[in-house]
Amino acid sequence: MKVLVVGANGGVSRQFADLVKTNEQIEEVAAIRNMDQTPFFTERGIQTVYQDLTKHTQEDIEAIIKDNAIDSVIFSAGAGGSGDDIVMMVDLDGAIKTMQATEAAGVKRFVIVSTFRTGRAEIEKNYIRVYTTGKTYADEWLKSRTKLDWTIVHPGLLQDIPGTGKITTVPQSDMIGVSRQDIARTLVSVLENDTTIGKEFEVVNGDTPIDEAIKAL
Amino acid sequence: MKVLVVGANGGVSRQFADLVKTNEQIEEVAAIRNMDQTPFFTERGIQTVYQDLTKHTQEDIEAIIKDNAIDSVIFSAGAGGSGDDIVMMVDLDGAIKTMQATEAAGVKRFVIVSTFRTGRAEIEKNYIRVYTTGKTYADEWLKSRTKLDWTIVHPGLLQDIPGTGKITTVPQSDMIGVSRQDIARTLVSVLENDTTIGKEFEVVNGDTPIDEAIKAL
Repeated sequence: MKVLVVGANGGVSRQFADLVKTNEQIEEVAAIRNMDQTPFFTERGIQTVYQDLTKHTQEDIEAIIKDNAIDSVIFSAGAGGSGDDIVMMVDLDGAIKTMQATEAAGVKRFVIVSTFRTGRAEIEKNYIRVYTTGKTYADEWLKSRTKLDWTIVHPGLLQDIPGTGKITTVPQSDMIGVSRQDIARTLVSVLENDTTIGKEFEVVNGDTPIDEAIKAL
Repeated sequence: MKVLVVGANGGVSRQFADLVKTNEQIEEVAAIRNMDQTPFFTERGIQTVYQDLTKHTQEDIEAIIKDNAIDSVIFSAGAGGSGDDIVMMVDLDGAIKTMQATEAAGVKRFVIVSTFRTGRAEIEKNYIRVYTTGKTYADEWLKSRTKLDWTIVHPGLLQDIPGTGKITTVPQSDMIGVSRQDIARTLVSVLENDTTIGKEFEVVNGDTPIDEAIKAL
């Protein structure tokens, strides 16, 4: 399975690259905006493609998907801290543009890394609400306006600590942490388990081995 | 018919207030964010309500609609020049929140003043693209995710010149101008003609009397 990772240089995605470099079933194609980021991937035997969601059209992205014989897309790009215009053009429109390009290319599988919580109630809490708004309407588009085989992963507070290999997908009353490495492992498990198609779920640190938690969804 | 005008202090909306102050069929309730704007409306015999899309929840807006026995909503709020965060929270989420409040209040009629052109191709032209993105996904939500009796008006380049009373709704190859007063007259005609429900159209300066153009849609 050839997987295009959009936002390949992000924290979760770099952990994902480290995991799949030795995975027999999953071959990553890393979409990066800054070609200075190339060595990290080539050192791991991973092909890179140049992609900039603020510049590329839907047709450009469709061409990347077709030219690289992509089977699945992981959308993990995020504009955290980059300005509200970038939230609009990457987290919202960039995500939807990638969904449209994926469908136009005839690819079905689409996994998106969202934020912990989305929706009206979260937006109205007025905490990083522009970001939450962008993520909310991207998720809504994926669920209601595409025919993609989607999965939406809602990670808890992302932490740069080694993973435990254990998570919970039980909805939490408050946001708790999760290792970026464990979210990367979750993404691998999602790709390996088509039972996750049409599902969205929170992922935080927990007591259940990741594969077991994902298979139980 | 009692009409809540969201964004009542905008250029088009002030023209609308001047038109409906003597209209026997349409009674405006002007939703304004800054109560210093009140005198303009009270001088015209129009009731005002305080509403701030960046602060009010869906439930707050629903209460305004119910408490004032509103029959129709015109959404004409726009964040032009106010920053990309406001585009996200007013033009996109503020519009959708108002749609949700309108439906929750049991009101069906919803007229939105969009931008001249929306959609993927317009966004990719990279001209005021954050604004175009906000408007695009608000319009899309209205059409696909609500059961409202909607009309979407796409005005040309808005001009502060007296109206001619004549427009065209024939799609244009390039954006041409239109008087704010003629867009206000178009909104009155839209409210008076339920044949506009479920329709969206461009409005620019033209040769057809407004009522005639609107009835012909």
